[in-house]
Amino acid sequence: MTYCVGLLLDQGLVFMSDTRTNAGVDNISTVTKMKVWSRPGDRFLCLLSAGNLATTQAAISLLEERGLHPSQRNPSLFEQPSMFQTAKLVGETLKEVISYTTPSGQQADSRFAGTFLLGGQIKGGAPRLFMIYPEGNFIEAGADNRFFQIGEHKYGRPILVRTYDHSMSLEEAVKLLLVSFDSTIKSNLSVGLPIDLQTYRSGTLEAGYHQRFDERDPYYQTISDGWSGALKEAFDRLPPFLPNAQVNG
Amino acid sequence: MTYCVGLLLDQGLVFMSDTRTNAGVDNISTVTKMKVWSRPGDRFLCLLSAGNLATTQAAISLLEERGLHPSQRNPSLFEQPSMFQTAKLVGETLKEVISYTTPSGQQADSRFAGTFLLGGQIKGGAPRLFMIYPEGNFIEAGADNRFFQIGEHKYGRPILVRTYDHSMSLEEAVKLLLVSFDSTIKSNLSVGLPIDLQTYRSGTLEAGYHQRFDERDPYYQTISDGWSGALKEAFDRLPPFLPNAQVNG
Repeated sequence: MTYCVGLLLDQGLVFMSDTRTNAGVDNISTVTKMKVWSRPGDRFLCLLSAGNLATTQAAISLLEERGLHPSQRNPSLFEQPSMFQTAKLVGETLKEVISYTTPSGQQADSRFAGTFLLGGQIKGGAPRLFMIYPEGNFIEAGADNRFFQIGEHKYGRPILVRTYDHSMSLEEAVKLLLVSFDSTIKSNLSVGLPIDLQTYRSGTLEAGYHQRFDERDPYYQTISDGWSGALKEAFDRLPPFLPNAQVNG
Repeated sequence: MTYCVGLLLDQGLVFMSDTRTNAGVDNISTVTKMKVWSRPGDRFLCLLSAGNLATTQAAISLLEERGLHPSQRNPSLFEQPSMFQTAKLVGETLKEVISYTTPSGQQADSRFAGTFLLGGQIKGGAPRLFMIYPEGNFIEAGADNRFFQIGEHKYGRPILVRTYDHSMSLEEAVKLLLVSFDSTIKSNLSVGLPIDLQTYRSGTLEAGYHQRFDERDPYYQTISDGWSGALKEAFDRLPPFLPNAQVNG
């Protein structure tokens, strides 16, 4: 499994992904699920992937080959005029790769399926964030739904639902995502450290801060240990349950 | 879907279950998933159910019919000498019901499968808690694993993992379960209000406090609203993320 999140904020975008891949619990390894492409001053793109690793790696390789040789007729990531066209290209590439391995064509429940989160900004446009399905179609984050999760998303969702605020700073968003990832990692073996972080500040058109957090990272340790204590305190401050009693207000 | 939790505590047992049943999002209704049997001074039993409603209701009806007519040769819930034998009886009944509807025999991934949590105490024994599988076998809560969840368990698990403590009071446990249920209900349509609560205090051999919480329940509202604020405060007290900075300690 996998856990990846992309957040759309007033200040920009924050991406986080775990690195565990597994073919059964007795066969796990560490692979990044985050890919960044940037041409400073022109565009910044970040792609997070979940699903069959052979599929997502093949799709990324195809996108890169085309990007490296913009002279050839194949469409290049760096030539797309908008984030929408970029999402379309990524979706088409994903669908193409899945169709190689799934005789009956691409479908979400295929063993070879994959899902992408794509976020970024291209000169002349606003920062945008998309979730791209195995069928090649996609949805965009907007005013009502400003973040996307892919993979093992349930454990880490309640804290995002309650705490996410589009006006939070990129640094607050990093803290929030670390709490969400730590909650997931503590509950499910299929999501594991280290965690990759990428930030993007609106309008800069270049990659923001990148970091990999492992179990020795002091900030990660502070969040992981501190959150348990903070939760316990928050819990203790809620009013006690009194059988048969009325709570006023 | 469904969400049910049983907690084994030093002071006793606490059970909570939602009441949403659905056959698609356009066909939902409210059905309790909690069944209590008690003969004060002799035994207290509480059964929570998840899975196919026809299956779990049939199993409970069979158990009840046999309980109502202890004179007949069928085994009765009220005649079992121990919680272990009670769990065995419940498991066998569940397996029997599933085998009616699943030609190939009982199996966990059957459309007709169900899962039970059974907790209680019988005179002469300690309070015990079991999770009973569609195959009729079961596992027991012990020192390493003192609570069980069935159904849509992922959203509400992180708060249980971090906050559960076997020495907490029954009232604190009710508060904890309401937070866990509220986190689940806020994230997933397939779990819904009202919520049924049952407590049992060790050694009393009779049902403890029972309550149904709906959206107008003032304590439920206090927890639901208060937890968002409490989480936000807890989150704000965690140290901020500083790119490139070292956190000492």
